[in-house]
Amino acid sequence: MKPNKNTLFALMLGLTALIAPDASAQMQQRPPTPNDTLRSPHVLPDNRVAIRVYAPKASEVMLSGDFLAGKPPVALTKNEQGVWSATVGPLRPDYYTYTLMVDGVRTIDPKNAIIKQGVSSLENVMVVPGSETAFEDNQSVPHGELRQVWYPSNTLGMLRRMHVYTPPGYEKGNTRYPVFYLLHGGGDDDSGWPTIGRANFILDNLIAAGKARPMIVVMPNGSMPASVMGQDPAQRMNKMTTAFTEELLKDVIPHVEKNYRVLPGRENRALAGLSMGGLQTLDLTFSNPDQFNYVGVYSSGFFGPTIDGAETKYAKALQDPNFNKNKKLLLFQIGKDDFLMEANQKTLGLLNKHNIKYQYKETEGGHTWINWRQYLNEFAPMLFR
Amino acid sequence: MKPNKNTLFALMLGLTALIAPDASAQMQQRPPTPNDTLRSPHVLPDNRVAIRVYAPKASEVMLSGDFLAGKPPVALTKNEQGVWSATVGPLRPDYYTYTLMVDGVRTIDPKNAIIKQGVSSLENVMVVPGSETAFEDNQSVPHGELRQVWYPSNTLGMLRRMHVYTPPGYEKGNTRYPVFYLLHGGGDDDSGWPTIGRANFILDNLIAAGKARPMIVVMPNGSMPASVMGQDPAQRMNKMTTAFTEELLKDVIPHVEKNYRVLPGRENRALAGLSMGGLQTLDLTFSNPDQFNYVGVYSSGFFGPTIDGAETKYAKALQDPNFNKNKKLLLFQIGKDDFLMEANQKTLGLLNKHNIKYQYKETEGGHTWINWRQYLNEFAPMLFR
Repeated sequence: MKPNKNTLFALMLGLTALIAPDASAQMQQRPPTPNDTLRSPHVLPDNRVAIRVYAPKASEVMLSGDFLAGKPPVALTKNEQGVWSATVGPLRPDYYTYTLMVDGVRTIDPKNAIIKQGVSSLENVMVVPGSETAFEDNQSVPHGELRQVWYPSNTLGMLRRMHVYTPPGYEKGNTRYPVFYLLHGGGDDDSGWPTIGRANFILDNLIAAGKARPMIVVMPNGSMPASVMGQDPAQRMNKMTTAFTEELLKDVIPHVEKNYRVLPGRENRALAGLSMGGLQTLDLTFSNPDQFNYVGVYSSGFFGPTIDGAETKYAKALQDPNFNKNKKLLLFQIGKDDFLMEANQKTLGLLNKHNIKYQYKETEGGHTWINWRQYLNEFAPMLFR
Repeated sequence: MKPNKNTLFALMLGLTALIAPDASAQMQQRPPTPNDTLRSPHVLPDNRVAIRVYAPKASEVMLSGDFLAGKPPVALTKNEQGVWSATVGPLRPDYYTYTLMVDGVRTIDPKNAIIKQGVSSLENVMVVPGSETAFEDNQSVPHGELRQVWYPSNTLGMLRRMHVYTPPGYEKGNTRYPVFYLLHGGGDDDSGWPTIGRANFILDNLIAAGKARPMIVVMPNGSMPASVMGQDPAQRMNKMTTAFTEELLKDVIPHVEKNYRVLPGRENRALAGLSMGGLQTLDLTFSNPDQFNYVGVYSSGFFGPTIDGAETKYAKALQDPNFNKNKKLLLFQIGKDDFLMEANQKTLGLLNKHNIKYQYKETEGGHTWINWRQYLNEFAPMLFR
């Protein structure tokens, strides 16, 4: 079958919405394959999700995803047409990430162009729709703007990027706003919170409902370049946190306070982070206790080698009887299955020993964005009250 | 070999920069494979580029990319370790896109997390560095901000997103700026120009060098939802352009003029688009000739079925002896190998017939971002003079 002229134009221009989805076989003048009309991910009416990949020559296809909650990868099974499939769930409505391993090579679902990008990895994103996702959906409410901002970092000697959320109405008014510094985890960059973390939509919805104060949310890049961490493995974790603390205080905050209409002072500054960002939050909070009145630590603590030196490194803050005086909020949130639970509990033990007061909220689940979006949704309403 | 505790923590947290790159085999307690240390893409000193993928069970791996300039895909060859590779080039320093086909299934390079996202496809991006890319590189110059902006579209009855570039200094001043509306092509969305199109960096560099006036650049989403295009294939292309023209004039421009400090009037408004966006630009220009004084059509014309009705549809503008009066610029740019050259020439023939004046610049190359970045770099300095 020869493609007609209109189909040909539509295909060459990528106007796939203008044509039938299986017209690419026509276009390439080859026999159709099951891949042409394959649908993946496919959310079924009962909230199970079918993942399908056409790989007739593969010997093994495995599925990993945050919805597996730490369980081993799922093996897909192959049908006679060469289509591998697995059905998972039913899943609670939410946004989920997943990846495929085809014959041992990590890859993505070729039928799903929605992805989350990390520092050196890609994952697919899928959504199981339902009323449970209302807090994180792109709703018909006034929207803030999400900005990519490049600035020169003197600390790191390079150009760096951050994402900045300005609340609805920022463009039109002269109002000044409090600022919430929100940190991602290891392997991510400043694009984590505003993509899979859905931070801008969560804030839009909270602000529209009157549940959170309009605020600026600054999402810096916490992944330090290899050059600042040196060669000694035992020192890298400390060098990483120290470099980021300096970068945030000397470059990120000054850039924000110079360029945006912010309310001044510690009472208008909040800080939270997940995992590696939780460690960075702790380092900032205990090395510079006068900077942030609202602090959140999501799924973290002093972990690995960082617990050992913490009592010495942060002695001044830990022994300060006034440490809690200006901390309107110091909240730890973690899932009961989180692999950092031990580090988290050791950290809380250290705080208890020094009579540092904090709040602690334990949830279901583990070390995943499923929890971090919920934590943000609970944390942001507590700020600047 | 059992991983030590610090390595384990670093791996589980995705802190790959903290550990050796091949530690993932340790972590997963499996024998190492060539995939653990594979590098792809690998730019060689002579500007050839090696693409490598570990796929020991595959029978065929093919490479496509815009650097092939319309030539057929390149077959990779397999070594005894199961690593497939191909070396292409030498390539002129630039940013390039590519994809792989593994046993007939389109996929991406699993070792390259830099990607370009389309409406329903992903492509890898690679850069061959060199002085030729200076105009599009992220340089140490003052940077504008790049914003994701959600707004309600009355025309389409849905929330829509656009990207907005505000020039360096916008945040701090009260200056008003002219506005350039810049349209992507079929299969892309509003993320095309600010990612693979590098529009924000091109503008940063032009403004820093004093070659372009500081301006706001608005990059709307020109991919119309299937619902507005109807079922009749012959009508879809017209319905698509008509819907976008209405969306731009009734929703995008009013949102921009309400929320940003813009200079008013047609003399402060420019419009350009590539491919499908070039068609949309032509439709806007000839159905609303009083809206834009500066117009650019990149790699396009009235193509496919849209040339037939153009003389009738745009009769009023074509027959207006004053059409050119306020058009300070009407520029067509196209590569000599572009598959839309015939449509482009027919369009110019129609303009000639009606004594519409325009400029025409023919370049090397075809229908690729390699050209479109160059076209933007030439076009933006001509605006608002």
